[in-house]
Amino acid sequence: MNLSVGQIFTEARTQNGFFDVPVPDERLVQLYELLKWGPTSLNSSPARFIFVRTPEARRRLVQCMSPGNMEKVRQAPVTAIIGMDLSFHERLPKLFPHRDVKGLFDGNSALTESTAFRNSSLQGAYLIIAARALNLDCGPMSGFDAAKVDEAFWTGTSVRTNFVCALGKGDSSKVFPRSPRLAFDEACAFA
Amino acid sequence: MNLSVGQIFTEARTQNGFFDVPVPDERLVQLYELLKWGPTSLNSSPARFIFVRTPEARRRLVQCMSPGNMEKVRQAPVTAIIGMDLSFHERLPKLFPHRDVKGLFDGNSALTESTAFRNSSLQGAYLIIAARALNLDCGPMSGFDAAKVDEAFWTGTSVRTNFVCALGKGDSSKVFPRSPRLAFDEACAFA
Repeated sequence: MNLSVGQIFTEARTQNGFFDVPVPDERLVQLYELLKWGPTSLNSSPARFIFVRTPEARRRLVQCMSPGNMEKVRQAPVTAIIGMDLSFHERLPKLFPHRDVKGLFDGNSALTESTAFRNSSLQGAYLIIAARALNLDCGPMSGFDAAKVDEAFWTGTSVRTNFVCALGKGDSSKVFPRSPRLAFDEACAFA
Repeated sequence: MNLSVGQIFTEARTQNGFFDVPVPDERLVQLYELLKWGPTSLNSSPARFIFVRTPEARRRLVQCMSPGNMEKVRQAPVTAIIGMDLSFHERLPKLFPHRDVKGLFDGNSALTESTAFRNSSLQGAYLIIAARALNLDCGPMSGFDAAKVDEAFWTGTSVRTNFVCALGKGDSSKVFPRSPRLAFDEACAFA
């Protein structure tokens, strides 16, 4: 599959509105089958994903969002909830068979939480890039009540919400004017 | 610029060794000029990057790494330190001119830290993908003494280290056998 740098970086824009064009479930499976290859620490792969696309689940999620993000979730055909499994290390014997690394995390909640947060964020970025590679527009959001999303979607699990991302065909008339980025010298240095 | 999904996801591999092939500084500028377009919350862009490529700086960084990661940093022509600026919100009036959002973070260190950690991690993932798009192989690592890296590279700043990533031409003979990923049903659900 061929892509362009424009499609995943330079031309892609964060969407604030979506057209009523459905996303088939098979597209979401395809999305996971791409993003799963992105690297994580010790292949720990702590991210868990819920693809919200029924009217009932969407209503539940809308109620957890900040006012400014409610309409985006209401419009989007799918919103992905990107969570982090705080028991991800239970899977390490399968995911990292090269040596025994599960013990690094047992009883070390600070390391477990930072590893889950960092690496599920990496995987959330892979989701954004992979979606764009599949011509799905993205509207990532972190303005919501995380405890409410946890309760509405992850009850009875060891997963906590990291961020959410609307997916679908974006309405380019609702995109913000493109914001400036930091210049190289403001963000980077050589050593 | 054309790429393939193989190049950025399905065929790309985490490198454990690097050939002695230099990476020109202009390539690293090009790398930043791509990754900077990846989306962050409120365009906050909290990541800061140091590209370590002199023998002296490399020696300093090697001394901060876990034993298993020392040789990787020693071999790689460049290792990027991905940091997070805990005063990123000072730049929001420039980065997010649409409305006044700096005040959300003033005096709220929990929100500031989680926003810096999440979004600098996203930007670290964009660095990995953008490097692969530019045919630079990656060796991301989080096994190091973060306090030591902070002291050796970010003293006198509000930046703290998130993770590091070796960059260059990877030695494919040192790549691990590919580890399994979680199946769709293990990592994902529909709602």
